[in-house]
Amino acid sequence: MNTFQRLESEVRSYCRAWPTVFTKGSGATLVDEQGAEYLDFFAGAGALNYGHNPLPLREKLLDYITSEGVTHSLDTATTAKEEFLLTFEEVVLAPRGLDYKVMFPGPTGTNAVESALKLARKATGRESVISFTNAFHGMTLGSLAVTGNSMKRAGAGVPLTNAVTMPYAGSFDDDVDTLEQLDYFLTDAGSGVDQPAAVVVETIQAEGGVNVASAMWMRRLGELCHRHGILLIVDDIQVGCGRTGPFFSFEEMDLDHQPDIVCLSKSLSGYGLPFAVVLLDPRFDVFKPGEHNGTFRGFNLAFVTAAAALRRWWTNDSLTKDVARRADTVTARLTALVEDHPAMFEEARGRGLIQGVECSEPELASAISAAAFEVGLIVETAGPRDEVVKLLPPLTIRDDQLEQGLDLLNEAVERVFDTEGDRLLSTSETASEAVAAG
Amino acid sequence: MNTFQRLESEVRSYCRAWPTVFTKGSGATLVDEQGAEYLDFFAGAGALNYGHNPLPLREKLLDYITSEGVTHSLDTATTAKEEFLLTFEEVVLAPRGLDYKVMFPGPTGTNAVESALKLARKATGRESVISFTNAFHGMTLGSLAVTGNSMKRAGAGVPLTNAVTMPYAGSFDDDVDTLEQLDYFLTDAGSGVDQPAAVVVETIQAEGGVNVASAMWMRRLGELCHRHGILLIVDDIQVGCGRTGPFFSFEEMDLDHQPDIVCLSKSLSGYGLPFAVVLLDPRFDVFKPGEHNGTFRGFNLAFVTAAAALRRWWTNDSLTKDVARRADTVTARLTALVEDHPAMFEEARGRGLIQGVECSEPELASAISAAAFEVGLIVETAGPRDEVVKLLPPLTIRDDQLEQGLDLLNEAVERVFDTEGDRLLSTSETASEAVAAG
Amino acid sequence: MNTFQRLESEVRSYCRAWPTVFTKGSGATLVDEQGAEYLDFFAGAGALNYGHNPLPLREKLLDYITSEGVTHSLDTATTAKEEFLLTFEEVVLAPRGLDYKVMFPGPTGTNAVESALKLARKATGRESVISFTNAFHGMTLGSLAVTGNSMKRAGAGVPLTNAVTMPYAGSFDDDVDTLEQLDYFLTDAGSGVDQPAAVVVETIQAEGGVNVASAMWMRRLGELCHRHGILLIVDDIQVGCGRTGPFFSFEEMDLDHQPDIVCLSKSLSGYGLPFAVVLLDPRFDVFKPGEHNGTFRGFNLAFVTAAAALRRWWTNDSLTKDVARRADTVTARLTALVEDHPAMFEEARGRGLIQGVECSEPELASAISAAAFEVGLIVETAGPRDEVVKLLPPLTIRDDQLEQGLDLLNEAVERVFDTEGDRLLSTSETASEAVAAG
Amino acid sequence: MNTFQRLESEVRSYCRAWPTVFTKGSGATLVDEQGAEYLDFFAGAGALNYGHNPLPLREKLLDYITSEGVTHSLDTATTAKEEFLLTFEEVVLAPRGLDYKVMFPGPTGTNAVESALKLARKATGRESVISFTNAFHGMTLGSLAVTGNSMKRAGAGVPLTNAVTMPYAGSFDDDVDTLEQLDYFLTDAGSGVDQPAAVVVETIQAEGGVNVASAMWMRRLGELCHRHGILLIVDDIQVGCGRTGPFFSFEEMDLDHQPDIVCLSKSLSGYGLPFAVVLLDPRFDVFKPGEHNGTFRGFNLAFVTAAAALRRWWTNDSLTKDVARRADTVTARLTALVEDHPAMFEEARGRGLIQGVECSEPELASAISAAAFEVGLIVETAGPRDEVVKLLPPLTIRDDQLEQGLDLLNEAVERVFDTEGDRLLSTSETASEAVAAG
Repeated sequence: MNTFQRLESEVRSYCRAWPTVFTKGSGATLVDEQGAEYLDFFAGAGALNYGHNPLPLREKLLDYITSEGVTHSLDTATTAKEEFLLTFEEVVLAPRGLDYKVMFPGPTGTNAVESALKLARKATGRESVISFTNAFHGMTLGSLAVTGNSMKRAGAGVPLTNAVTMPYAGSFDDDVDTLEQLDYFLTDAGSGVDQPAAVVVETIQAEGGVNVASAMWMRRLGELCHRHGILLIVDDIQVGCGRTGPFFSFEEMDLDHQPDIVCLSKSLSGYGLPFAVVLLDPRFDVFKPGEHNGTFRGFNLAFVTAAAALRRWWTNDSLTKDVARRADTVTARLTALVEDHPAMFEEARGRGLIQGVECSEPELASAISAAAFEVGLIVETAGPRDEVVKLLPPLTIRDDQLEQGLDLLNEAVERVFDTEGDRLLSTSETASEAVAAG
Repeated sequence: MNTFQRLESEVRSYCRAWPTVFTKGSGATLVDEQGAEYLDFFAGAGALNYGHNPLPLREKLLDYITSEGVTHSLDTATTAKEEFLLTFEEVVLAPRGLDYKVMFPGPTGTNAVESALKLARKATGRESVISFTNAFHGMTLGSLAVTGNSMKRAGAGVPLTNAVTMPYAGSFDDDVDTLEQLDYFLTDAGSGVDQPAAVVVETIQAEGGVNVASAMWMRRLGELCHRHGILLIVDDIQVGCGRTGPFFSFEEMDLDHQPDIVCLSKSLSGYGLPFAVVLLDPRFDVFKPGEHNGTFRGFNLAFVTAAAALRRWWTNDSLTKDVARRADTVTARLTALVEDHPAMFEEARGRGLIQGVECSEPELASAISAAAFEVGLIVETAGPRDEVVKLLPPLTIRDDQLEQGLDLLNEAVERVFDTEGDRLLSTSETASEAVAAG
Repeated sequence: MNTFQRLESEVRSYCRAWPTVFTKGSGATLVDEQGAEYLDFFAGAGALNYGHNPLPLREKLLDYITSEGVTHSLDTATTAKEEFLLTFEEVVLAPRGLDYKVMFPGPTGTNAVESALKLARKATGRESVISFTNAFHGMTLGSLAVTGNSMKRAGAGVPLTNAVTMPYAGSFDDDVDTLEQLDYFLTDAGSGVDQPAAVVVETIQAEGGVNVASAMWMRRLGELCHRHGILLIVDDIQVGCGRTGPFFSFEEMDLDHQPDIVCLSKSLSGYGLPFAVVLLDPRFDVFKPGEHNGTFRGFNLAFVTAAAALRRWWTNDSLTKDVARRADTVTARLTALVEDHPAMFEEARGRGLIQGVECSEPELASAISAAAFEVGLIVETAGPRDEVVKLLPPLTIRDDQLEQGLDLLNEAVERVFDTEGDRLLSTSETASEAVAAG
Repeated sequence: MNTFQRLESEVRSYCRAWPTVFTKGSGATLVDEQGAEYLDFFAGAGALNYGHNPLPLREKLLDYITSEGVTHSLDTATTAKEEFLLTFEEVVLAPRGLDYKVMFPGPTGTNAVESALKLARKATGRESVISFTNAFHGMTLGSLAVTGNSMKRAGAGVPLTNAVTMPYAGSFDDDVDTLEQLDYFLTDAGSGVDQPAAVVVETIQAEGGVNVASAMWMRRLGELCHRHGILLIVDDIQVGCGRTGPFFSFEEMDLDHQPDIVCLSKSLSGYGLPFAVVLLDPRFDVFKPGEHNGTFRGFNLAFVTAAAALRRWWTNDSLTKDVARRADTVTARLTALVEDHPAMFEEARGRGLIQGVECSEPELASAISAAAFEVGLIVETAGPRDEVVKLLPPLTIRDDQLEQGLDLLNEAVERVFDTEGDRLLSTSETASEAVAAG
């Protein structure tokens, strides 16, 4: 790792958790320079839902490159872009009855979020946006203002303005209705919360610690936005593209109205290529030509693989069913893990193939992730204190690989328990005794 | 173009100027669905300095994809990333005696600028940044605040703060020393301009209308920043990577100190793939691990083509010499054009292979661009009122293609002159007579 | 009122509610140009705690003016200022064991709040401040950012930044612990609420609708601030100077620590003269000489009357006892009023001589205020929808005047009930029936 | 001064420059506790244009207080307020053909400026405001954002936003046209300066160092604002009310249009009482009732003295003529002073009875002020580095007192010259020789 230490900025992060040099990837497997294989339950932080270098897409990609198809086109029209648009309409929008226009905001998630916020502000003439505790929307200044993480916010070096944070689903005890509180802030003329342009929300907060909003909560949020004339922006960057089963994470939630704006990126290209879109209700298609631009809005290789991915996986419901089956497997195994180690874990949670276990101490999550790497499993931590072990296997992982990975996770947990278990048990017994004695 | 009108957001722009569907690209040539060929003097707004799909890079790219090299890696270590870093050190940094660390901020220019601004603010503990009139640095909120264009700024929908705009080189008559004015604002304790974290500057403002800062101006700006303890950020996104001849646009300017931070993107991958880096003086390597992140910071296909581009074109000075020779050709032809049509043009200007002619009326520039498209030349307008016809041919364009493209430009100008010439001449004669009579 | 309509800005407000021209004032009585007398239960919005033109102060004032004492002195030292400082120390600070330095921020409440916010930000190096729903702290930009009222906030014309609003005591049902929520936002590293410089709070929100924080709530808030290293600023502008009984509204609350900063104004001069002070813990005495200034920081007439008021009313506890007795009278009468008219009122509430009744419909409060004016009582509305009739009689009001004023209020209520009662009763019966039937 | 050191905040400032305790004031004379007399060439920083405790006003004030006139009235109508409004109309507005509505924003200058900025933003729907280098408009957050002084700005503790600073008249050499530059920033669509709501300007920058804008500059500024649809706000707080001769500092400047908004305070009450008004073109009378408020907007003692001052001094032009005559005296004496001590002074400047001498070193100004105090003259420093000795005698000063004060100033200068002269002369000779030799 000398090269990276010498030449790369201190900001580098994942390479510290997984200190090896990777060379090849295929499906759910990564290989490093020493030839060691790893099962990848991280999947590019959700950018590799179909695994590494999926073959059906690779062939299309190689064909396109070989044929000298246009690679870079800004927002000029190209054959590949047209094909993507038509496929997206046919495979995604039309079957779901969604009436969206597609904006290409630049190739990353934060470009999409920034565009969504700009559109919502311009369309409403309002400046404030509501986001939620433990939200993650990106690192550029507009997106960072709606991101909760204090360490990342500190990187801005300026106050983050025009955003108000409200408690996400489940932030408080069950008897506190977080949406009733949001409604209060929007209704009470003295609340100090100015009428916002939009609410921006993730249906599951991935970076925030695998926090899951219920369908009911999302429906009520949609209703609340509609009632107050506030745009609802769903950031489906990490948990869209099938991560929860259906293409959009919200589509089985029976919302009264389609979200006004939806952001997609990460797995949209299907091949790990930088790509993002903003879907917007035509009523809010208010930018003038060129009012938002960017050099890499027309990355045709991504158009090609994205269209291929849609055709390969989204013209029927087999992937959605696979995800449901695999999700059940993960849920069962994580639940058992938590039950087996009550001193180590608070709970298992998640939806579809984004699931996690919250540890009783943040250090445990890091230790489990490190032990997993040692036994050949790539798995990340999440949450405000990195206290959650987060599982994001490729949606297309083979069932035996999934079981194998969960076995490796178990093994990693046991390794950590061997070291930390006695201490944790004695602490928790002491606590129990204190409660009993109290 | 029906697909685009129906499905794509109104924000689309270039496809309105060049209303055809492109299919293939090779070198300086684009081909559309009807088989029509165009000479490309736009080069992806500077992202295709080596032309479309350059063969030496394509082979490396195909090899890498075929071999199942890791495509997407966030900021884990990969073989392709290591190779890029070592090549960048060997080919770019070491020969120029530059001591920079490399940050991967995400794959676009605006990611790089946002990171640079965050770093400068964090490193200095100050919040304001100085930028220049007619600067263009990007569309996300932090970058947009240092961008001058009023239409694009209006897209933000919120006040753009913590930035102060100062007159760029040549904004006023020659007897006004713009840097003396900047010095006044920074020195006078009552100026109302708070001590900034950084000055961010383009050595040539490309989007701003091909405005060229002299080496002397840049040297004095660097000295001024150094004297006031302000970081100098050079945004070399559009005019770096050889656009002016040498790799960096500032490297022949004999600056006393290397810029504290340099942003590169656009042509860095050499193949039109989304890619960007921030180069930073190690003293300002102040981010904590993960304090800035992003999904597409590790796009290995770009690492591969970028390293290949550096090896192909930057291990000797032949490209730099080619650019100088071709630039002379362009300068000569544009100068003649302006001399031949004094009623149509204000002046020709530029440096290296970014050159342009400023029209006497903004509408003329659009008309020339449209006429050029009709005769088979892709050429863009720039400037606050889109009054400049901007030439950005690939650096590797064949000399005969360059001449051919300049011929087409001439032809386009003549077509516009046929329509508008009489009116312009009479207007300008009237003006001259008025002056003479006055 | 023609003069005012013709010459004064539309922003004028109270003169619309009480459309007559007042000439004289004495104690709790106002007289208008027609010689009509009014009992004043408004007391200059809390600026006339000792009534109009209190005789003991008037004599001192006349003496001072006649003797050519310095009237205006900025922050030079004067005899009158020294006398005020020594009296404040002797009568207010020393007996309460308070260790504060006194800052003269300018003569109004908003000057005091702005100074407090600036001090807290400078002392901590942090930028955000926590305020509460329905808070009122002033109309200049810094104070307005911590004020809740949406109509007043809209007057800013710019986003109000660096402030976060949290639910005030009693905003939600009893089972929601508002301070636990605040603690969550300050503790959770992903909450999106940046560590603030300070919390600014009124112990009773006067403009906000006579919302009362309990002693327990204030104690817990103080503890929370102390634990998080956040300054506690008490804005005692409207309810300090004896309005609740003791000199400070918080002094009988048994706080663990004195507030870090306290703002006083309104009744501080005792005579309705513009005057304000900021009391600050010496640890936060961080302004450089002249870093905050203002022309009317040294208004010696106010020094004179303020010192006289302290000597007259605060060297023993008789006024505090009087307030307690009178408060009981008001509470009893308002409680009876609410019981007598359940269709008109939600509840009676308040503390000391700031009490009010919340109406079931905002229009009722305005109607009662208008009817009160007709029968000779000046009484104001408050709350986000002006739904509360707020009683602020002079603390020194004679007991018979107090009873008389409460009689007049009753009369006003009956008048409104005569007009609106049938409608309200039928509405409320319908509602009751619906509930019963449901 | 022990009391002040022990009890008052460190922010106190003038009492450090003039370390004595003042007791009485009359006309141009102050008396301290030791009975020492001082000639006051500071006049409450412009708040005492008619001197201390002017007799004609004092009588009215005593009468009003004795008669139990309403002292404090918020914005209810009172006899005293009506009398002020009618007098202001009759004496000030009508004779000058000015069509303004009067807003009472609170009793201080910064209240007036904040209100003016809020009005301009609300009326135009724009957020940015242009101010000038070395401007001083107040210490609350909105006013501070348009104030240039860096030390005072640092007191905010937050970024000061929505304001852009432009070079004031005379900031650069004569060949730089500062208004042409402002026009450029407002006209060029790429300048990065958003269309502002207003320009706020002082015709003479008093705190900024007695910087004088010419009538031509002000006329051109007005024309520029009119042409761009930007409101012109004149802050006449320090140099209005006769300081330059006529009532308004701009009224002899022959502006094409009346300023859209004018702020007055300081000497408006005539007696040093806190008082301010905002005059606004009826087109911009856009606040809703109560949208801006404040406790001390109805300070009737100030209404009384203000009306009396207008009747006493502004019903004919004798004061204006007196000011002109006295100004000539001051100019002559200061010019001679500068000529006599070229090593100590850069220049004399000013207009009417605000004049000053700029020292060659900032320390000299403080030394002269200190020496003046020793010989019995109160005179302040101003400018970004406190390099200007600023003379603000009462407008009504007796001619013999004026001469006496100027004699004392001379004496102070000689005292400083005795100490510093040799050093200064040798420095300046060395410099001259270097120039001659060079």
